[in-house]
Amino acid sequence: MLKGIFPPIPTPFAGDEISLEQLKNNIEKWNSTGLAGYVVMGSNGESAYLTWDEKIKLVSAAKEYASGNKVIIAGTGSDSIKSTIHLSNKAAEAGADYVLILTPHFYQSKMNHEALLDYFRNVADNIAVPLIIYNVPKFTGVNISSDTVSVLSGHENIIGIKNSSENLAEQAEIIRNVQNDFSVLIGTASVLYPGLCMGACGGIVALSNIAPSECIDIYNMTLKGEHINALDVQRKMLKINKLVTSQFGVAGLKYAMDMLGYYGGLPRKPLQPLTNKERELMNEILTEADLI
Amino acid sequence: MLKGIFPPIPTPFAGDEISLEQLKNNIEKWNSTGLAGYVVMGSNGESAYLTWDEKIKLVSAAKEYASGNKVIIAGTGSDSIKSTIHLSNKAAEAGADYVLILTPHFYQSKMNHEALLDYFRNVADNIAVPLIIYNVPKFTGVNISSDTVSVLSGHENIIGIKNSSENLAEQAEIIRNVQNDFSVLIGTASVLYPGLCMGACGGIVALSNIAPSECIDIYNMTLKGEHINALDVQRKMLKINKLVTSQFGVAGLKYAMDMLGYYGGLPRKPLQPLTNKERELMNEILTEADLI
Amino acid sequence: MLKGIFPPIPTPFAGDEISLEQLKNNIEKWNSTGLAGYVVMGSNGESAYLTWDEKIKLVSAAKEYASGNKVIIAGTGSDSIKSTIHLSNKAAEAGADYVLILTPHFYQSKMNHEALLDYFRNVADNIAVPLIIYNVPKFTGVNISSDTVSVLSGHENIIGIKNSSENLAEQAEIIRNVQNDFSVLIGTASVLYPGLCMGACGGIVALSNIAPSECIDIYNMTLKGEHINALDVQRKMLKINKLVTSQFGVAGLKYAMDMLGYYGGLPRKPLQPLTNKERELMNEILTEADLI
Amino acid sequence: MLKGIFPPIPTPFAGDEISLEQLKNNIEKWNSTGLAGYVVMGSNGESAYLTWDEKIKLVSAAKEYASGNKVIIAGTGSDSIKSTIHLSNKAAEAGADYVLILTPHFYQSKMNHEALLDYFRNVADNIAVPLIIYNVPKFTGVNISSDTVSVLSGHENIIGIKNSSENLAEQAEIIRNVQNDFSVLIGTASVLYPGLCMGACGGIVALSNIAPSECIDIYNMTLKGEHINALDVQRKMLKINKLVTSQFGVAGLKYAMDMLGYYGGLPRKPLQPLTNKERELMNEILTEADLI
Repeated sequence: MLKGIFPPIPTPFAGDEISLEQLKNNIEKWNSTGLAGYVVMGSNGESAYLTWDEKIKLVSAAKEYASGNKVIIAGTGSDSIKSTIHLSNKAAEAGADYVLILTPHFYQSKMNHEALLDYFRNVADNIAVPLIIYNVPKFTGVNISSDTVSVLSGHENIIGIKNSSENLAEQAEIIRNVQNDFSVLIGTASVLYPGLCMGACGGIVALSNIAPSECIDIYNMTLKGEHINALDVQRKMLKINKLVTSQFGVAGLKYAMDMLGYYGGLPRKPLQPLTNKERELMNEILTEADLI
Repeated sequence: MLKGIFPPIPTPFAGDEISLEQLKNNIEKWNSTGLAGYVVMGSNGESAYLTWDEKIKLVSAAKEYASGNKVIIAGTGSDSIKSTIHLSNKAAEAGADYVLILTPHFYQSKMNHEALLDYFRNVADNIAVPLIIYNVPKFTGVNISSDTVSVLSGHENIIGIKNSSENLAEQAEIIRNVQNDFSVLIGTASVLYPGLCMGACGGIVALSNIAPSECIDIYNMTLKGEHINALDVQRKMLKINKLVTSQFGVAGLKYAMDMLGYYGGLPRKPLQPLTNKERELMNEILTEADLI
Repeated sequence: MLKGIFPPIPTPFAGDEISLEQLKNNIEKWNSTGLAGYVVMGSNGESAYLTWDEKIKLVSAAKEYASGNKVIIAGTGSDSIKSTIHLSNKAAEAGADYVLILTPHFYQSKMNHEALLDYFRNVADNIAVPLIIYNVPKFTGVNISSDTVSVLSGHENIIGIKNSSENLAEQAEIIRNVQNDFSVLIGTASVLYPGLCMGACGGIVALSNIAPSECIDIYNMTLKGEHINALDVQRKMLKINKLVTSQFGVAGLKYAMDMLGYYGGLPRKPLQPLTNKERELMNEILTEADLI
Repeated sequence: MLKGIFPPIPTPFAGDEISLEQLKNNIEKWNSTGLAGYVVMGSNGESAYLTWDEKIKLVSAAKEYASGNKVIIAGTGSDSIKSTIHLSNKAAEAGADYVLILTPHFYQSKMNHEALLDYFRNVADNIAVPLIIYNVPKFTGVNISSDTVSVLSGHENIIGIKNSSENLAEQAEIIRNVQNDFSVLIGTASVLYPGLCMGACGGIVALSNIAPSECIDIYNMTLKGEHINALDVQRKMLKINKLVTSQFGVAGLKYAMDMLGYYGGLPRKPLQPLTNKERELMNEILTEADLI
């Protein structure tokens, strides 16, 4: 089972192109922490704005720069089953240990139990590495049900879910229903501590790009039963987490990285950079959270 | 501060009229448990379908039947400030210790920070008992922000919130921002355990009508740091809780009460009774949860 | 059948109290137009903020001030069947020719076909004047289906619907399915012209409070087949209509009335008055629409 | 300016592969009608499930099979500006006269005015054929505002919009605000007639795949001022249109094509075929609409 904290890493750009040099710098910094691995081409990796060539290049580079004990998870899903299989296998060849596959969502209202089973089974049957389901209703408009996850958890090549819903009732149902060896990972740091209380085995959370120690602390403290300490750290992270996720998104996360010694840079268009006022607020909240 | 578990009790009807006799039977059963008090005329009390006379009669009766250590909280809010003040004071005279006041919501998109401050301050300034804010987005379409709650928590007559959102990130922000003596109560048993982990001081949860011991166990175990036990009970309650809340609503809760030795009866029209198939499912899940 | 244009009139307040004097002034101005009647205590009448006594007083006064050829429609619905019947009959005694009854909505997700049939039939069976259904999803979260309206249109005391959805596909389905003598009234001036094209028999539209001639023009021109002229007027009214409805709501409508020789005044709390900037925009758009 | 009715044609599959033979048969049938052209790889073309090679093959084939007077519009948009430019230019080389570009939408909440301007300007500046904006909130969660469309209508290579919202108030605002030579096309047959009344210059509507004559009748009758006739046809088409769009989607449209002498076949997975019960309903409504 997957365990621990994984940052969904942003993709660094220099001008219009991916900067592998900056990626290397970032990963080397993260290598020295207790992070369990890296998610490449998740939502924070601007996967939607990358070409296939860029995606494969990123996976190879991440694999190369990551220290040996870090797992590489690659986001390779799209609505097309054919394309998803193809890209997933390329990513596996390039070094991905797992693939993170978004729920298909273009025809939102038709993505019912049967459709989602069909999609994930077809993909999982045809790829060389284990599959992690990626549920993120705020981007996709699709919310996979605990019943569907339960059935899929019986597939030997579907080994977990990153659930980015903040609804812990649904997450609790998922954990209750799935096979024992199925990994339920929290998808947003806003509910990292209570999600771990509810039985999640770790988290893929944007915040861990800029606050790896704090996220790992929440994880370890909860495991050790140090609930009051875990809650303290969780509360301290609430505001900054909101800024780098729902409020300012990828542009906010990248700016925070710039402020903290990592390379963030600008997001790709059409994502917009932070305004000056937003930057000021970010600096203020980074300071308040003792990160700067 | 409020502490512990409070059931939002259903209103028993015999034919078209309220049955105080059945109310008495129910309350006498609950009196023998560790429940901290009773919420009369919450959403589960079908407040929207009761006349003012019926409401006052209910508060008086609940006060009379409740054992001395049980707090009485009366749901008396409506969009009209004038009516809310009037009914709240009548309820206070009839024995209510607190009033639970729904966010105003008819003009949903206009219920911003200023409007909500205006509403709650005007009400709180003019009523004889302390006010608890009631946030229930699924019924009202309004979700009060943690900033608004934070300001209102500074008012001496506004002493808490029942938050029925399942979004624990928002709840965590509320707890972080409010005055220290402000009571944040979980509004739905689906997130009772993680909500308590996050610092809530108790819960007003429909499930405690039919499973008072289990809800009180979750509360006590969490307080004592027995997290694994608390999680066990929480998980066991997930399915049945869903049936008596989001899935079947008041009709479901009342049917479950009938099955468990309380009096539920039928909801008022236009709410519809359960179908036979829904009843069968309810029986099955009540059994699975070891309640029957 | 109902025909023509009806303004849902705002309730004028002087300080905290209803001003019947200002109501009289407004109605006398409207009496000289071709408006077909007046809706008292609709959403624009701040019905949610009025006491029962105030409501009955308003109906009586409106009936008295209205010229003989104007129909009086009173908004008397609430979630409670009992209260709705009671208030509707009081309104009928006070002079209402019709009542406009909001879909019940507190338990939104339970207001299915059967529940809505139960509600409207029970009310319609027990009131002394004909019933008009009021569908306004943006306030209630409930959208009555064309199938439900179709069944209800067969009840002899349910004679029409005010449909405030801007979705003309749904409106077209309603018109197609209902009994021939059932009145389908457009509920928002933003789609008045195309709604009439689709077969609606008139409109209950906020804009007609401040632009009665323009709304009546759209109605008459469409009926006479002068489509290009009707479209011209419709387009000219788009921006101002948005300001006095979705954008600024009742406060906006009342301010525009003040600017145009009617009495608007302030809305009741918790509704907030316009800011200075919003007033400037309102003046600008009123001028652009040739209303000032 | 674009004028008339364009079907967004489904992509025919034989087993797992595109069947150009069936495409040819379908297009030859449509060639004999008054349809103004064909949209290839719209939402009904299952664009989300096609590889780039398949897309280019489809455009070439459609261009070849279409009679000379039919315009070819290719759906080539994705979130990535780079990919959208690349695919659009390939489609232009393959014979597309216009490209239809979906609003970017993965980061829904960030797709504000500036982001959408950036996206569409960057694409339009770099492609060899004129661009049509594609707004379809039910699939994307993004609803482009009339202000944004207004600015974009000033770009010389952005010549129109397919607006699949059923909200005619918004459409009216768009038409009012854009440059005179900008083409506003209705995106769903449910509001074809009233949309044309409001000033739209034509429609890209799924229904025209199976009922080209009826859609063209609505268009011509409205233009000639034969409103009663246009409304008659519109009403007759309401139910069947709903089945082949919102209710059963692409699978429904394809089944209806099979019933009417075209080749529909099955959609690609994960889209599910109709159940037997759904097929029966489809047959019934096709008969009721006099199409079978």
